[in-house]
Amino acid sequence: TVEEVLTIADTRKAIVDALDYLLSQRDFVLKTGGLGPTKDDVTKHVLTDYFNTTLTMRDEVRERIEKYFNERGIPVLEVNRLQAMLPEDSTVIHNMVGTASGMWFDKGDQVVVSMPGVPYEMKHLMKTGVLPKLQEQYQTPTLYHRTLMTIGRGESKIAEHISELALKMEKDGVKIAYLPSAGAVRIRLSAVGEGDEVKNMVDTYLDEMGKLLEDIQYSVDDIPMELALANELKLRQATVAAAESCTGGSISALLAKHSGSSEYFNGGVTAYANHVKIDALGVKSESIEEHGAVSKEVVEQMAANVRSVTGSTYGVATSGIAGPTGATETKPVGTIWIAASGPNGTQSKLLQLGKSRTRNILVTTQMAMNLLRKSILAGDV
Amino acid sequence: TVEEVLTIADTRKAIVDALDYLLSQRDFVLKTGGLGPTKDDVTKHVLTDYFNTTLTMRDEVRERIEKYFNERGIPVLEVNRLQAMLPEDSTVIHNMVGTASGMWFDKGDQVVVSMPGVPYEMKHLMKTGVLPKLQEQYQTPTLYHRTLMTIGRGESKIAEHISELALKMEKDGVKIAYLPSAGAVRIRLSAVGEGDEVKNMVDTYLDEMGKLLEDIQYSVDDIPMELALANELKLRQATVAAAESCTGGSISALLAKHSGSSEYFNGGVTAYANHVKIDALGVKSESIEEHGAVSKEVVEQMAANVRSVTGSTYGVATSGIAGPTGATETKPVGTIWIAASGPNGTQSKLLQLGKSRTRNILVTTQMAMNLLRKSILAGDV
Repeated sequence: TVEEVLTIADTRKAIVDALDYLLSQRDFVLKTGGLGPTKDDVTKHVLTDYFNTTLTMRDEVRERIEKYFNERGIPVLEVNRLQAMLPEDSTVIHNMVGTASGMWFDKGDQVVVSMPGVPYEMKHLMKTGVLPKLQEQYQTPTLYHRTLMTIGRGESKIAEHISELALKMEKDGVKIAYLPSAGAVRIRLSAVGEGDEVKNMVDTYLDEMGKLLEDIQYSVDDIPMELALANELKLRQATVAAAESCTGGSISALLAKHSGSSEYFNGGVTAYANHVKIDALGVKSESIEEHGAVSKEVVEQMAANVRSVTGSTYGVATSGIAGPTGATETKPVGTIWIAASGPNGTQSKLLQLGKSRTRNILVTTQMAMNLLRKSILAGDV
Repeated sequence: TVEEVLTIADTRKAIVDALDYLLSQRDFVLKTGGLGPTKDDVTKHVLTDYFNTTLTMRDEVRERIEKYFNERGIPVLEVNRLQAMLPEDSTVIHNMVGTASGMWFDKGDQVVVSMPGVPYEMKHLMKTGVLPKLQEQYQTPTLYHRTLMTIGRGESKIAEHISELALKMEKDGVKIAYLPSAGAVRIRLSAVGEGDEVKNMVDTYLDEMGKLLEDIQYSVDDIPMELALANELKLRQATVAAAESCTGGSISALLAKHSGSSEYFNGGVTAYANHVKIDALGVKSESIEEHGAVSKEVVEQMAANVRSVTGSTYGVATSGIAGPTGATETKPVGTIWIAASGPNGTQSKLLQLGKSRTRNILVTTQMAMNLLRKSILAGDV
């Protein structure tokens, strides 16, 4: 269990104070950041003093750093070579994707681990060095959790709907956490106990909850919407393309984000300006004149036409007023049309969202992908 | 100065322990989250007990909550109405964009403020309620900072290049922080002191540093790359479109992100599959056969053709192997071509990035926008 996370300044005093406080409370402290070669990074020196040890050159680390630069054709700087100077009384956690090593300090029964702060370097060290060593040294009870992914309803309404079940869960020691993000709520169930028993209990409750929330749940695995959609596409060996106005490329970017996405994602057209809707997507100019770009007629043409433009099985489209400008008398900010299209037809839906541009783009991106996912499952597109 | 940030569990014990610890160290504590209407949110009740007060119904808050739901055509639930029950010995910070109110507690000379955790609600409360009240009650020295935005060079190499200047700054009490993200480094200078004096000193150093880093700096304001590019486009009343393969829509999404982007952003084509490059962007199939999709020839056609497809002044394009799959013998993962095109011609550049798909997409997105920005400034496109 992660008990707390403390974010502090890159100063000797802040680091020492934090270590004093955390080691008075906790068994295991993971520290990130402050290991760069530049002067503002003091962590390594503070830790060396804190644990009463000295820095020594680690030859195997120095060789690795030199290799890292040589492979990239960049000259090795002295400041980078000095990154191989590491505290004597620490175990090196090797960094194969960067130049700052991790350091594992034992202090009686307590442990402090220091890792670089660059996210992918930290993740690499956690996976290859820290977690394996941690599992070797400690025995912990099973913490089991499952997550139900939902979209399209607020957390209070969900909570009201499942309140009876929630009471039962609580009595059995299963905790519920509602984790809202734009348009979506992740509902996480967790319990601590013995292996299979706690697993079965949480799984059973997740099933029950899934039935109560059938209309809004999109996955019983903790995966983002684009991967839930990708699963349906892969099952059908189908492809998708996006025709985006107000979302401006966000749907495409999510569909292209994951490795292997070329299996189901062909591309699309970002038709931000009206003339691009007409010229690149073949939307009828009369439709725009008559109904406006933010209309059922236009968004349905976008979804249908992007299929032929890109040779895709399915199309997904958005057109709306993300705000803060662009509102008309009949169409306030947050008026957004989404559509999904496929061999069986085209479906569309009007969203009435709020005033925040960022949130409107995020929510529309999620809702449009979900409309396509649900329409595919229903056989409507 | 924000001295520390503590992230804790949503439990009574964790909240009480955190308040005890922070109030032993600090004058002013800002707390976020745990104010939802659901059972897992205990913060309001813990704070009420912690400050020895009781909950009372605030009628003006209840009316606001009812109005909030009525405006959206959603029935008001009892749990939401109960959100108007607030601690008696606290000042309400009104929330005009949600249902959870902020609470301001005075405890002698110390202050604890509790705000909802939904980011845009918290930001709204900070701006309209908390910061004005804070400025009213406290007098603080001026903390002045400026940020130089750079792209295309690592922090250690930057630090080496400006080491002499950095020493001078340090002596004058100007702190340097290197804040790296994918492909870019923000360099922040900060100093504390008297109004104009500290301002002039930091501004002068920023100028000096900007001259030393002229080739890699893209802004002296803390703005993202897409806004630096947007500024050049607006100056020239020009428009841009993106033709994206490996970045999959990320450039478009950033160009469409900000309010007012329709002034300079027309849209674009995400040409993830090769046949979309040919059919929607008019890339010659011979070029793909002869040189491969990841080539100077193809990316330059993409950048040039997306201009005519979308009727834009400038085009920006990407085509590369983001990884982890897709590598060939001559083109390892991370081989990426970017291009910029305009009335004066087309420019392209080969990037040799690393193995992380996420990072490759992020870095390419930034580098491609910067290639266009620099090419516009040089008159090359």
